[in-house]
Amino acid sequence: MELYIDRDALGRALGRIQRVVEKRSTQPVLANVLLHAREGLLRLTATDTEVAYIGQVDANVSSGGEVAVEADALFRIVRKLPEPTVHLTLDDKQRLTITAGRASFTLNGLSAEEYPALPPFEARERATVRDGDLLRAIEQTAFSIATEDVRWGINGAHIEQVDTDAGPRLRLVATDRHRLATSQIPFEGQVAFPARMLVPRKALGVLQNLLSGSDDEVTLGFGEGAVQVRRDTDQFWFRLLDGEFPDYKAVIPSEHSHTMLLDRAELDATLDRVTILLTERARPVRFAFADGTLTVDVENVDRGKVEEALPCELDGEPITVGFNGRYLREVLRAVHGGRVRMQLSHALAPCLVTDPDVEDAFFVVMPMRLD
Amino acid sequence: MELYIDRDALGRALGRIQRVVEKRSTQPVLANVLLHAREGLLRLTATDTEVAYIGQVDANVSSGGEVAVEADALFRIVRKLPEPTVHLTLDDKQRLTITAGRASFTLNGLSAEEYPALPPFEARERATVRDGDLLRAIEQTAFSIATEDVRWGINGAHIEQVDTDAGPRLRLVATDRHRLATSQIPFEGQVAFPARMLVPRKALGVLQNLLSGSDDEVTLGFGEGAVQVRRDTDQFWFRLLDGEFPDYKAVIPSEHSHTMLLDRAELDATLDRVTILLTERARPVRFAFADGTLTVDVENVDRGKVEEALPCELDGEPITVGFNGRYLREVLRAVHGGRVRMQLSHALAPCLVTDPDVEDAFFVVMPMRLD
Repeated sequence: MELYIDRDALGRALGRIQRVVEKRSTQPVLANVLLHAREGLLRLTATDTEVAYIGQVDANVSSGGEVAVEADALFRIVRKLPEPTVHLTLDDKQRLTITAGRASFTLNGLSAEEYPALPPFEARERATVRDGDLLRAIEQTAFSIATEDVRWGINGAHIEQVDTDAGPRLRLVATDRHRLATSQIPFEGQVAFPARMLVPRKALGVLQNLLSGSDDEVTLGFGEGAVQVRRDTDQFWFRLLDGEFPDYKAVIPSEHSHTMLLDRAELDATLDRVTILLTERARPVRFAFADGTLTVDVENVDRGKVEEALPCELDGEPITVGFNGRYLREVLRAVHGGRVRMQLSHALAPCLVTDPDVEDAFFVVMPMRLD
Repeated sequence: MELYIDRDALGRALGRIQRVVEKRSTQPVLANVLLHAREGLLRLTATDTEVAYIGQVDANVSSGGEVAVEADALFRIVRKLPEPTVHLTLDDKQRLTITAGRASFTLNGLSAEEYPALPPFEARERATVRDGDLLRAIEQTAFSIATEDVRWGINGAHIEQVDTDAGPRLRLVATDRHRLATSQIPFEGQVAFPARMLVPRKALGVLQNLLSGSDDEVTLGFGEGAVQVRRDTDQFWFRLLDGEFPDYKAVIPSEHSHTMLLDRAELDATLDRVTILLTERARPVRFAFADGTLTVDVENVDRGKVEEALPCELDGEPITVGFNGRYLREVLRAVHGGRVRMQLSHALAPCLVTDPDVEDAFFVVMPMRLD
């Protein structure tokens, strides 16, 4: 193997691989990236057996070949090379030499046969979405996946199809039973989504890193217990989790006796301040919604108290509710628009949080009992 | 107590205090800052009993008073206040209310009598230095103070007077026995520096944070086992360590059979790259100095090897030396100039590292045995 390749393009591909590679796996070979040079390009493959990424970078290849080398070391080397043109050569003892300008590294590699083969994948159905839409849907939901209480069925994000006035949409849903986040995006294609369609958190993280927020087309291929994502020359594959997402629609409130309209940035800044005195994260922040004014306060018997008032449009009777400040802030960050609407029927009922101006996402936050 | 004060000025003073305050002290009262309002200003005092800081901020005081409140909470509150004008009021239960715009915090305070009194200090001698000079001397030496092997006598930076062709200088010296760093700065005043003048690392850290790098005058007051630093309205006080710095001049090489001149940034970038493959920090990097070229290399039996060549002016016979890459890089960062000079008499002799163009600092790095 011998080739010339651009440092920055190679560095970007290796950067994507870092999230796939397991550095502390029980199978040390998974800390490697498989390099495969053929005419005009270098293909890079990484997997932890649950997710896999295949990228390719244009290269001036004078002799093809393959080798597996430590992914982290190669990434750190490439990022620090002093010149933009990188020369890669492989000797017959699987030693990869990386030269750029006056720097020359040699990494001890493994033969490609030692690298695990990717499982066969056949897409039975395909959908296409926009890169930026998919990125938004991940950003609006992934934060709600349970981290501590990883119960079967909610330890990933659920994908399903919903039919809206504007046509069919692909919806992502995630919940940790304290809050629920949904986001929907347009798609093209005919897909019969099965009930078990649970995407692991790691796959969403890798995908988020792969997407650019552009208008480019991304193809989703649905196969037996696995999904393949193609974007430009990048291929990403992940296994679905075994488990069925609960009937989340049961917790979405359909009737509201109180509807509040607030400035999103103002409410976020208020929550940032009032939570300073909270020693325990699980303590509630008190929200007193009244005509024209929301008063937010926290009292910590040992340390002191904080109170802040901000403008609020209220439709309904005044109501006082407790929320977990961190959970609500994470939802506020996902709302995106300038205003936020909160709706509930009583102080302990699920609260629906939406952007009043855009209908492509909604959130539910469970209130907390106030002392 | 009642006053109006500028949020950003108060925030800066509280920021300096954060490095003084001990959050996990056995004396919980030391987590507080003592506030003392009198005509036209608010004075802030913090101490861990080894170092103390007194700052003051202009304020519009309508009623004086004092209170001690949690320093960390006050800092985090002030930084996040939504308006630049802050209103502070104290009630008769030692509760401090902090109001700015629509945000209102109340912190439970302690009466000023519960806050420890600062020890009496009398300066027997004084010296004045420039803020920027003192900051440079700290930056050039503090990194060499021993962190793990904190032997008596080298667990701080030593201050002494040296006489140069340009007049008397105040010199800071620090060593961990692997490397030694010295830096000297002009001063005015008559000071009979005692042999025991050992400044603790924490005091240097607080001082570094206090200095701005400007041409402003800083006054050093030397008292019984303690030093006071005054800069503008800031006062900083620290106890000297009990211990006598070793005779460091014995390790400074006076004769050199090899003198090397190198580009500092180039050598630093080379070391940044060649150390990527070092799994253990204590392994040496090999430096082969030859006529016109320095070849730097690292070999890691498991992972691979790296070699890099860079231009080098050598006066003397070619020589191969081992160095700890991290220690040498820290010294290179302290040298400041464009070029660096390395001088030694044989491969295991202390290596003198200097800026060939500026004589206000020098460094000694101990070589390592190569296998």
